[in-house]
Amino acid sequence: MTPVAVPETSHSGEQDLNLTAAAVEHRLAENDAPNGASNNAANGVAQRNVKELDASKLTYTFTKEPRNVPPPGVHSIDDATVSTDHMITVKWTAKSGWSAPELRPYGPLSLMPTASVLHYATECFEGLKAYRGFDGKLRLFRPDCNARRMVMSSVRISLPSFPAEELEKLMIALMSVDGPKWLPRDRPGSFLYLRPTMIGTQSQLGVQAPSEALLYIIVTFMPIMDSPPGGMKLHTSPNDMVRAWVGGFGYAKVGANYGPSLLATVEARARGFSQILWLYGPDGECTEAGASNFFMVWKTKEGKTQLVTAPLDDRLILDGVTRRSVLQLLRERLAGEVDVVERKYTIKEVMEADSEGRVVEAFAAGTAFFICPVSLIHHRGRDIQIPMGKSGDGGSITLQVKTWIGDIMYGRAQHEWGVVVPEEQ
Amino acid sequence: MTPVAVPETSHSGEQDLNLTAAAVEHRLAENDAPNGASNNAANGVAQRNVKELDASKLTYTFTKEPRNVPPPGVHSIDDATVSTDHMITVKWTAKSGWSAPELRPYGPLSLMPTASVLHYATECFEGLKAYRGFDGKLRLFRPDCNARRMVMSSVRISLPSFPAEELEKLMIALMSVDGPKWLPRDRPGSFLYLRPTMIGTQSQLGVQAPSEALLYIIVTFMPIMDSPPGGMKLHTSPNDMVRAWVGGFGYAKVGANYGPSLLATVEARARGFSQILWLYGPDGECTEAGASNFFMVWKTKEGKTQLVTAPLDDRLILDGVTRRSVLQLLRERLAGEVDVVERKYTIKEVMEADSEGRVVEAFAAGTAFFICPVSLIHHRGRDIQIPMGKSGDGGSITLQVKTWIGDIMYGRAQHEWGVVVPEEQ
Repeated sequence: MTPVAVPETSHSGEQDLNLTAAAVEHRLAENDAPNGASNNAANGVAQRNVKELDASKLTYTFTKEPRNVPPPGVHSIDDATVSTDHMITVKWTAKSGWSAPELRPYGPLSLMPTASVLHYATECFEGLKAYRGFDGKLRLFRPDCNARRMVMSSVRISLPSFPAEELEKLMIALMSVDGPKWLPRDRPGSFLYLRPTMIGTQSQLGVQAPSEALLYIIVTFMPIMDSPPGGMKLHTSPNDMVRAWVGGFGYAKVGANYGPSLLATVEARARGFSQILWLYGPDGECTEAGASNFFMVWKTKEGKTQLVTAPLDDRLILDGVTRRSVLQLLRERLAGEVDVVERKYTIKEVMEADSEGRVVEAFAAGTAFFICPVSLIHHRGRDIQIPMGKSGDGGSITLQVKTWIGDIMYGRAQHEWGVVVPEEQ
Repeated sequence: MTPVAVPETSHSGEQDLNLTAAAVEHRLAENDAPNGASNNAANGVAQRNVKELDASKLTYTFTKEPRNVPPPGVHSIDDATVSTDHMITVKWTAKSGWSAPELRPYGPLSLMPTASVLHYATECFEGLKAYRGFDGKLRLFRPDCNARRMVMSSVRISLPSFPAEELEKLMIALMSVDGPKWLPRDRPGSFLYLRPTMIGTQSQLGVQAPSEALLYIIVTFMPIMDSPPGGMKLHTSPNDMVRAWVGGFGYAKVGANYGPSLLATVEARARGFSQILWLYGPDGECTEAGASNFFMVWKTKEGKTQLVTAPLDDRLILDGVTRRSVLQLLRERLAGEVDVVERKYTIKEVMEADSEGRVVEAFAAGTAFFICPVSLIHHRGRDIQIPMGKSGDGGSITLQVKTWIGDIMYGRAQHEWGVVVPEEQ
């Protein structure tokens, strides 16, 4: 890609139509420019002499107060997530670009009360797990996908761009340090959760793209959420609550997609449901389940087994790494048996399939919930029961794809998606 | 209002339609319940023995390192907003409710990297100014309106509720301390900017309503933005960018409304415009100008002078305090001369009025930009020029209402909207 010049005083109607897309493309293109020209979030003009994010400059300051690894099953203490001993932080300013990344003791951040992130939600994050394999090795699952999505999210929320592979290197470096202790070899089949985060730190109340930011990576414990007793129960979103919309930012992993949805989720939980099934538009297109992608398996009217999930093209939903992996494996391994379709489909279609006895199974897929069978959808006073398979813990396709991906994560199957983290012996 | 019980396992279709509205009403109703029952954000169940926000418990810790007041016109140093010597902070937890408010030296906040606000945009704020009057008095302008809106925003983003009047008392208490020094009597006609802010502080990565929060109030300097040379120039929003949507949260002052809009604003500024005129829906309804409300004055086809602005009823736009004041004063004082209408109107109507020579004037209104004349709207390659009055600095209705409101703010006219802050002599 060639860096795209921004027309400063364009008055053509065509360019007005795609102001956002133009801005995103322009910012991403800067990544290919020399001299770290990707760093100017504030005015969209490429700058010289600003430093690019460079994982090779990582400095190490080890903790002098190492903490104990919690016993298996403990992931938070006093309502606070348990983190590992270290984190990586990297400062960015529009003037100077990226500082050298620092691996340092995990601890609080100091932010001025005027910091951009606290007022304007200039923040984005990623979530991925590190897995202790049954072969003893430590792996990340497709970290390149998360790193690339983080760049896209960051640009969408007016935070700086950076080369995705540098973030991937930093994640691996952090796991190399904290993995051996916090994900010990005697706990095969367990995982930690990495949370790369970027926040706007400029201490300036003006509504503007921040000229200072902080990228940080932390590693935490998280409960196993992929097998709730009886399956995940979904409540469709109310008419007065839309998660994301065409022309919005539903496809980006920015804080602004999460906080506003909590209210409906809290209310749904008080009514006994696990998550919201987010509908979109007057026809009630099924989009996401909570913060996970959602998949229906049904028989078509012609009797074929079909897996459907919402498409990416209108940028309403997250381009999930688990989603992508599910689709790819099913297409590769169950071709002919299951028809895999990304298209818009509505809650009416789901209800119709239910009435006609064509619903086969359903699941949510994402990093936090992995692949989680769905047993019920509640919509406008009606319960749609979804088969949970012979075992009662998920339909056969759900469990099949869960096994396949789990095997890659935990080293029971060798696959390029499982990236081994080097560790001291 | 009577506290509304949340039906825990309601399966009626009707209630499913309004899950969010039900949740908001339920939370707001709790404010009227005894024993500070408004405090449980996490599960929507009223609790006993949690403490309500109580301004009378304010403690005072004065700074030992007082800073200098910047010279007139200086509002930031090294890209950082200048704040006054003190701030007020109040901690909240779901278990205990509100701690005693603390007035203390302005300084950094310490947040764990896992804090809710840094990931899920659990944040909201208010903005209002303190004015040093020409009569020597210090005033806030309708602080009750800001305090009530803050409660609504907080509940919408799953942060705690509180009695609005307690926040108003805290704002006045802070200005009583910092007003005499930072808004000195020898600078009549100047202002400071108060920023009450609420953030979710729980150190927990789960996507959930935070069980800990911090309310804080800071006082800062801000540039005068109501009179840009040549007027404010607006660029209509691109097709691929929607600020707010029906079923969203455009009416609440939450961070999630701001960060995502920065990208288009940056691009518009690079093209020489001041702000985005946010259009909504296929017909291009005019909603807001940047983060301000927007007003058109035109002649109707029948020859009447009409002021139009977007309505509040679909909750797309902010219920601005300046907006509300503009409408009320024009209805009171220019009845018969100007027809004041809150309704949906489209960019096509604006273009048609322009073609027919019916556009009279336009302005943006909000706390930051006060009442700011608009001279140009650029839409899809076309420039709509808007008259700026005989003086060239704004149309006559724009300047009239600006004078009226300014006179109340700066004590040239006595009015109940100007709330005097008590100061030591």
